[in-house]
Amino acid sequence: MDTVGTGRSLPDTRPRRRTRTRHGTDAGNDPWWRTRQTLMDATTLQLIILPAGLIAVLFALYLARDVLARDTGTPEMQAVAGTIFEGAVAFIKRQYTTIFILAIVGAIGVFGLISAFETKEVAETDIFGPALGFRTAIAFFVGALCSMASGIIGMYISVKANVRTASAARRSLVEAVQVAMRGGAVSGFLVVALSLLGVYGIFAAFGGLNPETVKDAPFLIVGFGFGASFVALFAQLGGGIYTKAADVGSDLVGKVEKGIPEDDPRNAGVIADLVGDNVGDCAGRGADLFESTAAENIGAMILGVAAYTIALNAGWPDPEAWIFFPLVIRAFGLLATIVAIFFVRGSETEDPMNMLNRGYWVTTLLSVVGLGFATYVMLQTNGGTGTTGLPTWVYFFGAGIVGLATSIAFVYITQFYTAGSYRPVREIAESSKTGPATNIISGTAVGFETTLVTAITISIALFASFWLGEQANLIGENGRNVGGIFGTAVATMGMLMTTAYILAMDTFGPITDNAGGIAEFSRAEAGAREITDRLDAVGNTTKALTKGYAIASASLAAFLLFSAYIDKVNLIQARRIAADIPGAKLLESVNLANVNVFIAALIAAMLVFFFSSLAIRAVGKTAQAIIVEVRRQFREMPGIMDYTQRPDYARVVDITTKAALREMVAPGLVAVATPVIVGVLLGAEAVAGMLMVGTITGVMLATVLNNSGGAWDNAKKYIEAGNLKDENGNVLGKGSDAHAAAVVGDTVGDPFKDTAGPSLHVLVKLLATITLVMAPLFIR
Amino acid sequence: MDTVGTGRSLPDTRPRRRTRTRHGTDAGNDPWWRTRQTLMDATTLQLIILPAGLIAVLFALYLARDVLARDTGTPEMQAVAGTIFEGAVAFIKRQYTTIFILAIVGAIGVFGLISAFETKEVAETDIFGPALGFRTAIAFFVGALCSMASGIIGMYISVKANVRTASAARRSLVEAVQVAMRGGAVSGFLVVALSLLGVYGIFAAFGGLNPETVKDAPFLIVGFGFGASFVALFAQLGGGIYTKAADVGSDLVGKVEKGIPEDDPRNAGVIADLVGDNVGDCAGRGADLFESTAAENIGAMILGVAAYTIALNAGWPDPEAWIFFPLVIRAFGLLATIVAIFFVRGSETEDPMNMLNRGYWVTTLLSVVGLGFATYVMLQTNGGTGTTGLPTWVYFFGAGIVGLATSIAFVYITQFYTAGSYRPVREIAESSKTGPATNIISGTAVGFETTLVTAITISIALFASFWLGEQANLIGENGRNVGGIFGTAVATMGMLMTTAYILAMDTFGPITDNAGGIAEFSRAEAGAREITDRLDAVGNTTKALTKGYAIASASLAAFLLFSAYIDKVNLIQARRIAADIPGAKLLESVNLANVNVFIAALIAAMLVFFFSSLAIRAVGKTAQAIIVEVRRQFREMPGIMDYTQRPDYARVVDITTKAALREMVAPGLVAVATPVIVGVLLGAEAVAGMLMVGTITGVMLATVLNNSGGAWDNAKKYIEAGNLKDENGNVLGKGSDAHAAAVVGDTVGDPFKDTAGPSLHVLVKLLATITLVMAPLFIR
Repeated sequence: MDTVGTGRSLPDTRPRRRTRTRHGTDAGNDPWWRTRQTLMDATTLQLIILPAGLIAVLFALYLARDVLARDTGTPEMQAVAGTIFEGAVAFIKRQYTTIFILAIVGAIGVFGLISAFETKEVAETDIFGPALGFRTAIAFFVGALCSMASGIIGMYISVKANVRTASAARRSLVEAVQVAMRGGAVSGFLVVALSLLGVYGIFAAFGGLNPETVKDAPFLIVGFGFGASFVALFAQLGGGIYTKAADVGSDLVGKVEKGIPEDDPRNAGVIADLVGDNVGDCAGRGADLFESTAAENIGAMILGVAAYTIALNAGWPDPEAWIFFPLVIRAFGLLATIVAIFFVRGSETEDPMNMLNRGYWVTTLLSVVGLGFATYVMLQTNGGTGTTGLPTWVYFFGAGIVGLATSIAFVYITQFYTAGSYRPVREIAESSKTGPATNIISGTAVGFETTLVTAITISIALFASFWLGEQANLIGENGRNVGGIFGTAVATMGMLMTTAYILAMDTFGPITDNAGGIAEFSRAEAGAREITDRLDAVGNTTKALTKGYAIASASLAAFLLFSAYIDKVNLIQARRIAADIPGAKLLESVNLANVNVFIAALIAAMLVFFFSSLAIRAVGKTAQAIIVEVRRQFREMPGIMDYTQRPDYARVVDITTKAALREMVAPGLVAVATPVIVGVLLGAEAVAGMLMVGTITGVMLATVLNNSGGAWDNAKKYIEAGNLKDENGNVLGKGSDAHAAAVVGDTVGDPFKDTAGPSLHVLVKLLATITLVMAPLFIR
Repeated sequence: MDTVGTGRSLPDTRPRRRTRTRHGTDAGNDPWWRTRQTLMDATTLQLIILPAGLIAVLFALYLARDVLARDTGTPEMQAVAGTIFEGAVAFIKRQYTTIFILAIVGAIGVFGLISAFETKEVAETDIFGPALGFRTAIAFFVGALCSMASGIIGMYISVKANVRTASAARRSLVEAVQVAMRGGAVSGFLVVALSLLGVYGIFAAFGGLNPETVKDAPFLIVGFGFGASFVALFAQLGGGIYTKAADVGSDLVGKVEKGIPEDDPRNAGVIADLVGDNVGDCAGRGADLFESTAAENIGAMILGVAAYTIALNAGWPDPEAWIFFPLVIRAFGLLATIVAIFFVRGSETEDPMNMLNRGYWVTTLLSVVGLGFATYVMLQTNGGTGTTGLPTWVYFFGAGIVGLATSIAFVYITQFYTAGSYRPVREIAESSKTGPATNIISGTAVGFETTLVTAITISIALFASFWLGEQANLIGENGRNVGGIFGTAVATMGMLMTTAYILAMDTFGPITDNAGGIAEFSRAEAGAREITDRLDAVGNTTKALTKGYAIASASLAAFLLFSAYIDKVNLIQARRIAADIPGAKLLESVNLANVNVFIAALIAAMLVFFFSSLAIRAVGKTAQAIIVEVRRQFREMPGIMDYTQRPDYARVVDITTKAALREMVAPGLVAVATPVIVGVLLGAEAVAGMLMVGTITGVMLATVLNNSGGAWDNAKKYIEAGNLKDENGNVLGKGSDAHAAAVVGDTVGDPFKDTAGPSLHVLVKLLATITLVMAPLFIR
């Protein structure tokens, strides 16, 4: 099952002129599913990409209009929503200004490094030096801008949807669900569509539509993925630090010290907390999934080049379809999601989670149809069959199904580990009876335990999609079977088909969380608060699901991006060998028995922990600043407690903003610098080891942090719901010692699940995109 | 820097008759350090192994006599010491009965599997099938027995030394230090000497002293290492679960709920807690380091075979010296430690840590001398020189120094991260002011952070020792430089020279901890308690140091054991190739780009977390049982609080024993079964990936768990010592909210640092020994 060197082993610098054989000649007596259809071929199907992306953008605008047109509730609601809006805009403005500057510095750095190091000898295509540096920097910058745009717009709608959800909750559960879900869908569609259009646009701009250069273009656009990861890293770190520092800081003073409820207007930190939901959960996760889809799409296209070469040499119809395939798949995913949004409906008495699930299943089923159609039309081999006699496309269809199934599996695994009704959360709640220490111990045990199913599910998915791909008999010139790795790429693409819907569900979380906060803050009627509470609980689940989904896609993609990196290194080496450069040799394997690879792997595992340490500590430091300020206001403004004095919310927002932006820089720089330094010191093979072991450790630690955090959160909610009883059957609810212990666990889990864990997703993918871009620096 | 295939690439089944050239012919005009000495040669030096081992055993007996002859204090002291002794013996008896049965099952399993699978086709020597199965099972069982013996005897002396230390503390600090240190040294010497004698004995029994079979013997004795790891795993797990469950359980009821001091006789769990110090910290760590020294010694001897072959072919004097070298080095280490014990002295006003450090430095300096002498005498190459012109042995001497320096580095790194006067502990103490949640968050951040220096130090040590070894120009038949990997083996052996002393310092910890408990329990005079408190604080530091040392040795050894595994696989494959078995090919690299290797690596990382989860949960479950029982006694025996009723200590000891033994089985089986299952399903190359990534993740997670636990512990002590002040300068000491928060952290850290962390050390090495033994099962 060796996959190294699936790329071309020799630099065939010009594609041979191919003979188009649109209709397979040997298909006459085959059953229908073997014959080549005539109504639609791959070239036609590729035309779907641009319209699908644009339709998704238009649909997002329609949804935004729909949401914005709804009523904005009572004057009290409008007042608090306005304050949240101000705080969020102030933060986003400053954060994205900082990120914009960092992106410019990053683009200049990319330009300089590529221009200086990617000389003719180490270039993977005929473009090198400053010409390549300029293109890569442009791709980087466009990726960064698209990511920033999708984050900003999505968050804008989210801070507008919150108050409308709160207001709708005064009338109807279904309406509230729809407002929140549509608000979330704006973010979901924009993120995925901008990523699709961005990749397609830059691919087209760099020669992807020209048959002469189509196979070079995927390598030229890796900068786009790096730009997206770069922005995502800082967006997720800054937002994650902000949201959890505000949450931890204001809860510790308000709930714990003063004994007032969460989101009580007397707490000076409450607005910062509500702002945080938007800038962290919403903008952060959007940036995360933007770069996931972009980076994995580009990686899959790079792997498609190997299949393209085979198709070209074998005279199959539409060889470039193997490169365009990931884009088409995502277009189908977007269209499926648009239909699914209309299925988010139900009755007033229905569990809101059911309504959201209905849409998810519609997305998944339509995705299966789209996947089948796209593989059938695009992955044609002139009647070629796999080892079990089925046509080639069937195996890849199977691999795509594996990807979709993996995403469903993760949705249920996450529910089991973090939802209140199952063993793990009950176990944590029970252990809260003996105090905070046992609560933390058992939450840690649960978090560590979740790696088991995560790793086994990923292993099965990888093994199955690789095996299916291998059976497709995609044999390259050098006798290597490139189908296996393409199978994992198709699985990843299959999984990503539902991204827009998943992201809509995720953004549903902060919108309903905010709606609840606004209802509480504006002392809305009990009925409205009851509805927002129910939605908030559902939102917690969907937020957790998205993290599981992001982890699963990161792990599936790891193998894909790793292989893309090796393809790129070997492309460079093949050109160097052809140019008789001494010492040039193909990267045949990434050998852990090589001491440099081992050291790089060790440093990668360390990086994952060290980066998390910086992220967690950043939350702690920022929270301390908030605690000091909120305490000061309670002390110096005695009228706050009896509502005669208004706390200075803006000051807390301002302190949080400054501290979060300051604290996001160190972990960000560590993440960007480490792979470059290791690569320069220890070489290209060592970097491959770093990438792989960093991904494995990162995925495992992110699983631990996300799930322990989620479980602690829900253990607290489980107790608050009155489900915990002592030996005599008395309920141990709010105000009990067990509840106090559970609040400690919840607080500990906050930076785990909303800062460090999600930032690790980004780190893992950043490792992949940065090494793809910087590969020439590591070759000696 | 490729190291794969450093073993012989073809099965030269019989060593050529060699011409002994005792005196290098071309050494006439060389300076003294190039000429071959005449008074001592390698064959003579090898004679030191047996006497050194026996002398160490005799010295241990002398120390034991010395300790046992000392006075046993007041009748109250004797009474409580007697109860501890009874509890400890009861637990050890039951635990080792269980382990003994498991070891018999294990030996039968090893016999069956090796007999069935290690047929002529996949045997690495001329011995195969049942003949090999029998030998491996015997080696396994002897390893298991030696490990059990050293654990039991060491613990026996430790439970006798505690009361004598407490009694000595009534008279003199120096005397108390000496009693505790000598008691600890009994354990230290027995563990290291039994491991040395065991390896040497089984090596001799399996043909190691016969020039015809010396190069096969190292491969035949791998069972010894597996047996040692097997016992260590269960000893560490069972002891670790016992000690921390007792500690957590009795503290939560006594200190937290009832507000009585630690080790107060009214707490029914206090005896179990004191017993736990011995069975966990003492017996557990002893078993851990027993298998470290044994496994790493055997691994180094396997790597020595490659050098032996070179030496034989080149006609160097005493080729087998390259195989015996690790044994001789350890003999010197033992002798150095014997001398050093006499340097543990000082004045009554001196910091006890200084006295212990004095001995450590003496051990280290004498080890340098021994290392230089042994490399000079044994690693002779007939005037061969390395790349920089120095004789071969000088490079390996340098590599050994790197090992010793690494151990010193870890001693100081651990101190920085876990001792009270430095930034990390102060940071945790400060964050306790805002409650338990921020205490946990900042302790986690510190724990994660400690991976940074750990990984960098290990990387430097590996790189430096590998580089030095490469410079020695040890070029094998196939042109491979085998010096690099031998350099890392010498570094590991250098590091292990001080094991006996380190282990003595470690056992000093539980002895003084117990002495303090006995003094408190028997309400001894304040002077004695003050001295035992000081010793206890020092003991905490030495316990932490030992864990750092164990981790460093595990990481250095990882690369060595990994290479030994690859050597063994290739030895088998070379024989299969020679026998024209289809599909046989050398394991040239462990390729992370192979999907099976990636999956195995992912599962390895998961195993580390999942195993820790089981260990941590086991503590939680066992502690719950203790809490329920101690609470029951307080409730049903109201006379306990005013000393009119004696708590039923024995019942708590009994409950803890049963629960700990029950809970140790699941994690133990998971650890043993996973590598075997993965190997059978995914093959030999995948197992290599599992071994490597499991080691890397295991070392990182153990670092996190050990150091966060140590830092939490010392943050609590820092507050208790009155070092924390509020903004007005008032001391926040015992009884403050900050102290309560710090107690939570301390309790959380207990199972981290004393159960899961140390068990991970064993897991990492078990992965290596089990795969070494089971390698033939994984070859297809």
